[in-house]
Order: sequence, then C-alpha cells, then structure tokens
Amino acid sequence: MMFIDLNCDLGEGYGPYKIGRDEEIIPLVSSVNIACGYHAGDHSVMAKTIKMAKKHQVSIGAHPGYPDLQGFGRRFIPMKSEEIFDMLVYQIGAISSMCKAYGTSLEHVKPHGALYNLASVNPSVAEAIVQAIKAVDHSLILFGLSGSVLSKIGEEHGLCVAHEVFADRTYQNNGMLTPREQKNAVITDVEMASKRIKELISNGEMPTVSGKKIPLKVDTICVHGDEDKAFIFLKKLRSQLVSQGIDVRKVGEHHGT
Amino acid sequence: MMFIDLNCDLGEGYGPYKIGRDEEIIPLVSSVNIACGYHAGDHSVMAKTIKMAKKHQVSIGAHPGYPDLQGFGRRFIPMKSEEIFDMLVYQIGAISSMCKAYGTSLEHVKPHGALYNLASVNPSVAEAIVQAIKAVDHSLILFGLSGSVLSKIGEEHGLCVAHEVFADRTYQNNGMLTPREQKNAVITDVEMASKRIKELISNGEMPTVSGKKIPLKVDTICVHGDEDKAFIFLKKLRSQLVSQGIDVRKVGEHHGT
Amino acid sequence: MMFIDLNCDLGEGYGPYKIGRDEEIIPLVSSVNIACGYHAGDHSVMAKTIKMAKKHQVSIGAHPGYPDLQGFGRRFIPMKSEEIFDMLVYQIGAISSMCKAYGTSLEHVKPHGALYNLASVNPSVAEAIVQAIKAVDHSLILFGLSGSVLSKIGEEHGLCVAHEVFADRTYQNNGMLTPREQKNAVITDVEMASKRIKELISNGEMPTVSGKKIPLKVDTICVHGDEDKAFIFLKKLRSQLVSQGIDVRKVGEHHGT
Amino acid sequence: MMFIDLNCDLGEGYGPYKIGRDEEIIPLVSSVNIACGYHAGDHSVMAKTIKMAKKHQVSIGAHPGYPDLQGFGRRFIPMKSEEIFDMLVYQIGAISSMCKAYGTSLEHVKPHGALYNLASVNPSVAEAIVQAIKAVDHSLILFGLSGSVLSKIGEEHGLCVAHEVFADRTYQNNGMLTPREQKNAVITDVEMASKRIKELISNGEMPTVSGKKIPLKVDTICVHGDEDKAFIFLKKLRSQLVSQGIDVRKVGEHHGT
Repeated sequence: MMFIDLNCDLGEGYGPYKIGRDEEIIPLVSSVNIACGYHAGDHSVMAKTIKMAKKHQVSIGAHPGYPDLQGFGRRFIPMKSEEIFDMLVYQIGAISSMCKAYGTSLEHVKPHGALYNLASVNPSVAEAIVQAIKAVDHSLILFGLSGSVLSKIGEEHGLCVAHEVFADRTYQNNGMLTPREQKNAVITDVEMASKRIKELISNGEMPTVSGKKIPLKVDTICVHGDEDKAFIFLKKLRSQLVSQGIDVRKVGEHHGT
Repeated sequence: MMFIDLNCDLGEGYGPYKIGRDEEIIPLVSSVNIACGYHAGDHSVMAKTIKMAKKHQVSIGAHPGYPDLQGFGRRFIPMKSEEIFDMLVYQIGAISSMCKAYGTSLEHVKPHGALYNLASVNPSVAEAIVQAIKAVDHSLILFGLSGSVLSKIGEEHGLCVAHEVFADRTYQNNGMLTPREQKNAVITDVEMASKRIKELISNGEMPTVSGKKIPLKVDTICVHGDEDKAFIFLKKLRSQLVSQGIDVRKVGEHHGT
Repeated sequence: MMFIDLNCDLGEGYGPYKIGRDEEIIPLVSSVNIACGYHAGDHSVMAKTIKMAKKHQVSIGAHPGYPDLQGFGRRFIPMKSEEIFDMLVYQIGAISSMCKAYGTSLEHVKPHGALYNLASVNPSVAEAIVQAIKAVDHSLILFGLSGSVLSKIGEEHGLCVAHEVFADRTYQNNGMLTPREQKNAVITDVEMASKRIKELISNGEMPTVSGKKIPLKVDTICVHGDEDKAFIFLKKLRSQLVSQGIDVRKVGEHHGT
Repeated sequence: MMFIDLNCDLGEGYGPYKIGRDEEIIPLVSSVNIACGYHAGDHSVMAKTIKMAKKHQVSIGAHPGYPDLQGFGRRFIPMKSEEIFDMLVYQIGAISSMCKAYGTSLEHVKPHGALYNLASVNPSVAEAIVQAIKAVDHSLILFGLSGSVLSKIGEEHGLCVAHEVFADRTYQNNGMLTPREQKNAVITDVEMASKRIKELISNGEMPTVSGKKIPLKVDTICVHGDEDKAFIFLKKLRSQLVSQGIDVRKVGEHHGT
C-alpha cells in the first residue's frame, strides 16, 4: 500500500487578524505546521489551533520563524547561528508545552519562510536548527526540503527527517525547485501534479523541466489552501491521490505500516 | 539550622538594552527569576542568563509577565483567564526548553509585575496561573506573596509554594504590604530588616506597622540590586543573615535538611 | 437641505494581515478614520489607504489608539495623561506627513477603541487628546461621541467638534448609549435607524429606550462594514438617507452650505 | 573663522530601558539625532529628548531606522524602495510634529544604522530617503556620509546636505572608511584626530591609510559618547577643536557666518 503525508501551515492569525481557512483545510491534511508567535500566531491562536489539530488527529508541528510579524517571516533577518539556535529552542519549547497543556503532543518541526529557504542551502543555519530540535526533543521529526542541506544535516545528526516535495512546483536537474520567476515553475494541472506524485512515491523519481528523471525522496507534500485556487487544487489533489490508491497519512504512521 | 532563599529578577535586558547588574547580583542570591520574552528578555538574553545561573547553581525560575515590553509588565493589561493560562504555558514552556537545551532545568515560577499583583488578590487569575504551571510541570515551585490568594490557591491545587516576603517593606495587620504611598512602607535600615527576617524565620511572626505581630509564612525573600542603594542593601542584608546563622539556600534544598 | 457625514474605520490591516473591505466601503462614506500604526496599520497600509481616500475625496482622519496590536486597541492600557499627549502627537504627526507626502491633507481625528471610550468619560484623558490635536494642527476636526466629555472639552478649547452618533444603537435618558449587554441596545431595522437619524437631523432630538426624547447634537454617523450584516446595513442606511433627502457629505463641507 | 558641527545619536532608550548618557553628551555637541520609535525610542523618550535638545539649543534631527527594536536598527531588513519612502515619511512626520508640540522644530535628518550604510552605496534606497525628506519638508538638512551615494543624490535633488566625517576612523583612497576589521581602521589618539579635522576644515583634504591626501567635504563630525572611552574621546576632541580656533556650531548656522 502507498501512502503520503500532506502538510499545511495553520494558526497564522494574530490577535484580531485571521489568515487562512484553517477549519476547511484541516480535514484534508495529515500534518499541520503551527506558527509559534514570532512571524505569526500568538498564544491564543496557538491554543485554538492545537485544540483543532488534536480533534482532527493530525500531526502537530512547530513552524518557527524569524521574529518579524510585519514581514510574516518572509524577510531574511541577519542572525548568528547561536541566536537561531536560541530562537528555535524558544519557539519549539513554547508550542511543545502548549500541546502538553492541551493533552496532545508535538510531533514535528518545519522551519518557516525565509528561515526554511536559508536552511535549505546554508549548512551552519541548518546545523543550528537541527541542534535546537535535538535539544528540545530528539524524537521530533524534521520536515525539510527533499534534497536540501537541511534534510541532509538532519539525517547526519540522527533526526528522523520527512523529505518534503512541492506538488505544484517543477524541479531542475540539480533537484532544486525551478525558481518562481521562470514560466514553467508552477504546475496548475492537478491531474498532472498527482501523477507526478504517484510516480515519485512508486519509483522515487521526479521528472525535471529538461526531461530528465532524478531520484528524489518524498515523505510529505507541502500544500496551501488560503486562496480559492489553492484550496480547490488541494481538494482535487487529495481525491486524485486517494483514487490512485495513495493513503493520506501522517509521517509518524508511515513506518508502522 | 536556619535557612532562607533570596530571589532576584534577572535577565531583564532586551536586544541591545541592559537592565540590572546580573553578574554582580547572582553570587549573592540562591534563586533567580528570568524574564521570558514578554515584558522583558529575549531568546538571546535568556540563553545568556540561564548559562550564568547554571554556573552559579542557583534555582532557575520563569518570570512570566504581560506582553508589554514598553510598560515592562508593570501595566495591567485586561485579559480573560483563558488567555492568561495560554500566555503562561507559552512562556514557561519556552524557558523550560531553553534550560534543558543548556543542560539544566527550570525549578520555579514567579509571576512578574502587574500580573503578580493581580494574582495576589484575584482568584480566577491565580487559578489560571496555577493551572498553567501544573500543565507544564507540576513539580515546579510557585513563588507567591506570603498570605496571598495566589499562594493559597497554589497550595490547594497541590503545588509546592514558596511563600515570599519582602525584606524592605512593612506589613499591615491583615498581612498585606503597607502601600508604598504611606511613609512607613519602606525599611531602609538593613539591621532592622535582617532582625525582622530572623524573627520571622524563628517564630513565624512579622511585626506590623501598628505594633501587633501576625503569623506569616516565609520561604524566600525578594531582593533587588539594580540601583546602587538596593545593591548595597542586598549585600549588607546577606551578610547580616549569614552572621545571624541563617544559611542562604534555594527553596528546593530546604526540605532536604 | 439636510446633510450628514458617514464615517468608517479603514486601513486596519498590518503587514500581510487584512481586516475590513476598504475598497467596498469607501464609496459609501464621506469620512474615513485611518489607523496610525499603534493598534493597527503600518506605514505601507497607511500609504495605500491614504491614496484610496484621496481618490474618493473623502475626509481623511487620524485614528490613533493604544500601542497594542495584539489587543487591537480595544484593551485599556494604563497611561499618564502626558504619555497620552505624546502618543497622540506622534500618531497624528505621522499620518499628517504621510497625507502631505501623497498630495492630500489630514482633516480630522477620531480616537480609537478603548481610548475613545475612556476619553468620553475621563476629563484628563480628553484634555490630553484635545491638547495633542491642537499642538499638531488646531484646524483638525475632532470626532467625539455626541454629549461626551471629549466633545465638550474639545469645544471648550476651541476645536471644531463633529458630534458622533451611532445609527445602530439606542440611547438612554442621560444621552449615553445603552450598554451592549442590554437586549434593546442594538437596532437592526435599517428603516427605523434611518428615520431616527432623519428626526435627529431635523429636530435635534433622539428617542430614548424609555420613550423620552432628548436633545442630541449630530454631525457624523459612525458606520461599520467589515462583516456581511454590517455592510448590508450600511448600504441600506445610505440609500434610505439619500431617499429621505439627506446628503452624505463630509463634515468640513457642512458649514459651507 | 572656522567652525564645525558635532552630531551625536540621542534618545535611544525604550520604555524602562536606557542607552547612552544623553544629559552629559548634549552640552558637548551642536546637533542631535533622535530615534523615532522604530529601532529605538518611543513617544515618551522622544518627548523628553526633544525638550532637552530645545533647552540646549542644539539642532534636532530625525534619526529614522528599520522597524527592528531587538536588532537596534543594525540589521539589514529587506524592503522595497516604496516601503522605505513610507517608513521615512512616517518617522520624520512623527518627530516633526513632536518638535512642534514642544515649541521647537526639526532641522535635519540622518538615517540610522543599517539604513545609513545601505543608503551610502545604494542609489534607489538613497533616492527613497531623499524623496521622503522632501515630501515632509524640503528645508530639512540631510546628514549623509561625505562622498557617499546618499549625499550625492541628496544634493542632486536640491536638499541641503551636511557632509559627515568620522573623527575616529581612517579613510581609504576611494574616500570610503577603512573597514573596522582592518587594524588601522580606528583612531584612538585624540590629538591626531583633531589635527586631521583641522586640516580637513582648512584645506578640504583628508589623509588616507596609504599616505595620499584626498579631497573630502566636511560639515559635521559624527561622535559617540555612550561608553567611557568614547565619552572621554568626545570631551577631549571638543576641547582640542576649540583650542585650535574651531567653533562647534550647528550646520544651519554655518551659512549665516
């Protein structure tokens, strides 16, 4: 039997502000990445989101980011590795305790936005993140871009790594995503997207923009659902996967099969 | 043998800002209350302070406060009990993980500023704080004003409570501190202050401003050292206590004697 | 000819966060109150909103509030009058310069949320606000609750005051709004609401919940349009007013008629 | 007669936090750059500093920076030019109104920290800053690094530019400061520093690290006084300048001589 995890960012509101359709998305995914109060989220939004995730039995993940609400964690903020370590321990520790307080537990960590992008290519940033996860709880699963520096360093340090692939993005021969500026970067055809994922799950191969096939690990698919188009894509993608015999299941349950 | 805990607020800097003489104070006390990033402190300041506290083998406490850096947690911010619970779990969880990451552990919790004052008299706020501490780790010691609603509720819920007394303040017949507005509220004579503490430790009695003696529990003395005067008071108080045969020792070690 | 100003809060987003349907509401009103970066809004949101307001030729107002994004300015933050003065000058000055930079000008000021409520009853807070407005530009129009302490003090200090009435709220014999907790506090019948406004404009009298009629000044009606219900109410109210021969016109243009 | 302006950053506290010895420094300088609430300063600190500056009759300048209190404006935050324009207008407008409210007026603008450094070399950032200053008040004097892109663009757009030189830093043949990493970057000998300034004022020539002399404009010298060493350097420098017959005088008064 084939299975895959679908993960989505949730709990990105702040005070009176809402972003995303958390209630509608959560039944469609198996893992949620919850903002931890730095780039989005606050203690009340986090509590509400954790309770919702618990009810839907999805994997709860920390989604730590730069301390930049105005920039939503999408701006790169220069920081030493030591500070990145401290900032990650703080955020992961906070959400981990909130999960415990609401009778559930934190299962994974996925860095957010600019931090995710930087960690994908920068070894010392990746190392700081990996060490922070290990320092809080070495059983936490790291969600990292498949083929990235972060995923590689996570595995080297003994973390369980979930290799993340983007369903709506094309890949280059070097295994990296085609930059969004290029015209063939985004896939809008859901059928094509789900076929690519099935092939990837079956054979471990991803076609590239130049026609080659490259080996690519996949444990989890990153999805979004805040905008109408993305939400429809997500709904269709999920049913396509199911109709292809692929079970949507959180990463921690893959190994039990 | 007699002993007492001296506790002080530390780690109250933020980014480039410094408050207090943490390095000079820490050798004089047995417990430190570290700001958790809401009213003061940030992940870097917290890390530095935790490392210092570990080195000096003092009890490390969370010092959670209102999310109000500009007001330093001294302004009362209206919040529902549920939000106070979430805000406390977040802060205590964050610092607890940072302690673990630096090879030590959190031992106590003392609410800060306006939150401490409110919890001393408001049962639902006190209850929210107590439940938050229990939700993170029920073995954490609660530092609460001796005779306060917070200390009472903490004990009712099975927490280990350290009853806090102020060495430089006088008390009223009802067991509460004389308000600062009144002229006899503050004690500047260190010898008198230390004698009062010795009597309190020996007999469990505190003299009041009207000449009576009231029963008062004491486990820990709140001290400050940021200003010159306060620092000199603290140094003298400590040596007076020692010369009276009172050992300065963290709360967790009292019961082992 | 009869006329009235309709005012609405706009520009309440922050960074990636949006609140309200600014684009849909602005054609329906004659004055907008723009958040100034303390309780909502940031320099980019403000710039965008000012440009939109300029295009629609509505009166641009500062909407200063407490420095509390998480609480959206709805929480009362304890502050001395001197600080309220400084905080108002800062916010009004900032938005005033932004208006100038985009080729338009600030015309009015309406305190936001908890600050508005407090200033309605507290003379020293009202005085601080009035002095701040005068210090920046004494020709700015103050929007204050009709019959409130703020409106009274504004007039005493020579400010042009626009007396604000709520179309969807009932009034008590003392001229104050019926508290929201009471069942007859809110009016949902648009026809009734617009009739009350017409009578108010014509005779200067507002019916109270106990059946009396009280004198009440009115220059501007506070409207909201962020939620579906409120938006429909606003649209209907506006057409009712127009069909009754009442022209929707900004306050600064009333006196020219 | 020769004269020079000495400028220093002031008002860098926040809430309970203090940085710098504003009271001691202000009698020694002729211009102060006041933080505007983004990287440091808040409305209360600004008010206090403006009152102090007014009393000492120094030139009051806006010191706008990135919105980054934790990083003190020293971290580069990625932003589009349009946002830099808005952020500058906001900050300059706020402090300008505060000056007016306290019976004085804003005279100059000096970008802070990472923004100053970026504007020294990046034409589009420099242009955004220059346009923002012009949009608020084209009579404001721009303080820019002598020989920098910012100073050049400021002059091209008709602003009065004060060319800033660092007394304690050496220069390279290209007119730029020797990077701090290099061993001969900093001058600690006050006598040598003041001689260099005198020669610069007299001949418009600055010696470089390689022994050449390059033409360099100078209107104002940037000084610091927060640390003991810097404060002593500043005091000595000022008396050396005075003893050499150089009058310390704000930029706006140079042209009147």
